[in-house]
This record gives sequence, structure tokens and C-alpha cells, in this order.
Amino acid sequence: MCTLTLKEVIPPMRLRRKQGITDKLNMMNQLVLQNPHQYRGEWKQLFGNDNPLQLELGTGKGGFIHGLAKQSPQNNYIGIERVPDILYIAACKLEGEKLPNVRLLMVDAEYLLDIFAPGEVTRLYLNFSDPWPKAKHAKRRLTHPDFLGLYRRLLAPGGEIHLKTDNLDLFEYSLLSLAQEGFSLQHITYDLHNSSVTDNIMTEYEKRFSDLDQPIYRLEALSPLI
Amino acid sequence: MCTLTLKEVIPPMRLRRKQGITDKLNMMNQLVLQNPHQYRGEWKQLFGNDNPLQLELGTGKGGFIHGLAKQSPQNNYIGIERVPDILYIAACKLEGEKLPNVRLLMVDAEYLLDIFAPGEVTRLYLNFSDPWPKAKHAKRRLTHPDFLGLYRRLLAPGGEIHLKTDNLDLFEYSLLSLAQEGFSLQHITYDLHNSSVTDNIMTEYEKRFSDLDQPIYRLEALSPLI
Repeated sequence: MCTLTLKEVIPPMRLRRKQGITDKLNMMNQLVLQNPHQYRGEWKQLFGNDNPLQLELGTGKGGFIHGLAKQSPQNNYIGIERVPDILYIAACKLEGEKLPNVRLLMVDAEYLLDIFAPGEVTRLYLNFSDPWPKAKHAKRRLTHPDFLGLYRRLLAPGGEIHLKTDNLDLFEYSLLSLAQEGFSLQHITYDLHNSSVTDNIMTEYEKRFSDLDQPIYRLEALSPLI
Repeated sequence: MCTLTLKEVIPPMRLRRKQGITDKLNMMNQLVLQNPHQYRGEWKQLFGNDNPLQLELGTGKGGFIHGLAKQSPQNNYIGIERVPDILYIAACKLEGEKLPNVRLLMVDAEYLLDIFAPGEVTRLYLNFSDPWPKAKHAKRRLTHPDFLGLYRRLLAPGGEIHLKTDNLDLFEYSLLSLAQEGFSLQHITYDLHNSSVTDNIMTEYEKRFSDLDQPIYRLEALSPLI
């Protein structure tokens, strides 16, 4: 049912919209939820348990959330990706195992509060988000204060954001932006692969560059309690 | 014994070295310690108790440490100031009350490890430190990575740095520098006087500008446990 052509496995730099990708995603509607708004405030019912709900924003090809969901069956995971062709690759990766604690969604981050009730999420993962280097695009960065305000509503008190990136400018922008919005910052490292962190799950992007000497920056931010 | 002339109470922008200030400080040698190296590793003995030891780097006119020492008799405090004329003002402020839990020192921050043993200090206060705005002077900033490395040695595991400033550039430089050195950051506010912090003790400098609309930036940093 879920087959990847070579072009899909190794996508070209510019992804052309493939015919029928929406149809293919529709056929996996147990994994890739088609109308997620209906679960707002009731995600526990979808998963059939009270386990903590964690999101990955920009799930890409799904390697990270796949590894995480297998490693941590005590949590529920939702991978969010707005590019259908990329989401399809993630879906194919996850489809075979039918892990009970993971789902995928196609939505822009700005609409998260339409899909999740305030406080419904315990952790957000931001992995190698687009740095949007030009100042005029700062509002598109996933750690812009506007997004952080949204995450504060989304997250339960004391909820966490775990961020990693290979882009120093985005990392330092994120540190200042999180500080400005009142998040506490902990476990900050400027070189994840040579740090004391031992349970890191690498994304596809991260693996691809891990042999180069590019350091990976990582932080955890705690949502303010007030 | 301790009298301030008007020029001493309201010092001119450029402080001229006053004749005899060293003599005056020498006469207060119970409060202003003349040979602090002798207490290295044995500050508990000087204070006659096991209470936590906290330092203020750049104690200025002493208003902050005076308020703090009165408010928190369960801690020992040492105010450090390298400008003799300023230190004298602080000494005069403290001399009358003879608080048992506070002392003053005249030393450059770079020599702190000659005076305190590793892990002997539980908290450092950095209040309105000189921002040294030019890049070529970055090494003089009290939150330069070289100083942070020194503080890491000075502080007990989990020891804290409490920083406040009205200089946004210094604040953001400090956030990044602390993050880079592995400190955790908490209770970050970009507007201290309109924040949830209720036990703030104002410095003289802070009081002077508190009626203007200049926000005060504040953070707490926790020394890494490893």
C-alpha cells in the first residue's frame, strides 16, 4: 500500500508536488489524521489513555518521532509537518509498525490552538527548524515571540520545549526570544554530539551532517508556571 | 570616625583619588578586610558559622548588600568593589550598624580564586555591571566566558548567579555567554519592576533611574552540576 519511488526516497532539492499524494495520505487516515480539529481537548480519547502528549513541529521524514515513539511507549506523540510530500515519507516510515502512540498531522504551526486545547500538550520538539535568516522573515521562525506566546498557551504549566539546530544564528535568536518570553532555559549545549547527553535521537538531517564538524546546538525551555 | 563630605556623598562623574582614603579604609579593618587571602577556604571561621557565603561583584555604594544582609541574617555576604572611593561610601553606609554577616573587600574580580577556594561560594550577585560596549573590551565584561569559567570554579555545585542591569546589550550578551558556558537560566525578566518578583532590593543606581521608563533586566543562572 505504501511504496516509495526512488525519487520519493531521495527527494530532489526542489520537491515537485506529486500527483495523487493527497489520495495516498487519505488512504493512511488511521496514522495521518484528516480532521484533527475534532479531537481538540480530547486527544486522550483518541489514544485511549492518559499518557502525556508531545508534539514535534516540522517532523520532516519522521526518523526522530519514529525513534522516540518506539523508545518511549509511555508517551503519545504527534508529528506535524506542513509539506505533504515530506509528510508522506514520514508516513511510509511509520505505517508498517503501527505503533499505537504516534500520529501525524498536516497543519501550519500557527493553527495549533485550533487543534489542541490550552494545556493539552506537555512537550514540543523543534528539530532543525527553518532559520529564516532574513530579518524581514523573523516572524516565520518557530521561536518568534508570537509562536512562543502560542506555545505557552498550548503547554501545560511547566511544559517543555526541546530545540536542536545546526544554525547558530537561529539558536541564539531562540535563546533570547525564549528568555524574553519568560521561559527557563536548561541543559544548554553548544555541541550536542560531544556533550553529556546520551539519549539523543538523531533526525535524518542530523545524521547526514554528523560526520562533518558542524556542531549541533540544543536547549530545553520550561514554560513559566504563571 | 566615618564622615562623608558632600563630594563623597554625591561623587562627580570622574572620581579623583582622594588623599587619605586608604588610611580611612584601614581604620575600618573589621569591616573592610585588608588581607583577605588569609581566609581562603576558611571563611566560615571568620564569620563564626556555617552559613552560605554570597558575594556581590561591584558593590558600589553598598545599598544593595546592606539591604540584603539585614533582610537575610541566615547568609554571609561579602561586597567586592575595586574603586577605593566608592568602597569607602559603602563602608560608611555599613559601619554604623555592625551587621555580623557582612564584610567588604577591594579586589579585581579576576583574582577571586586567590581569595576564595573552589566551591566556597553559593551565590554571586552582579548588579549593573559596566557594559563595556565596545567589542574590543568584551573581555572586561563580568559575564565574559573567561569570568564565567572562574565563577564555575568558585561556585558550589548548583550555585547561582543573580544578574540585573539596565543595559539590554549587556543582558543579551550575558544570556548567550551563560548559555554557552552551560549555565541553566531561570526567572528571566525583561522588566523587573513590573514582574512577579516582590523581594527586589534596589541599588542606588537602580533607585535613581526607577522613575524613568528604563526597564530593568534580570536573570538567575545555575552553575552546571558537572
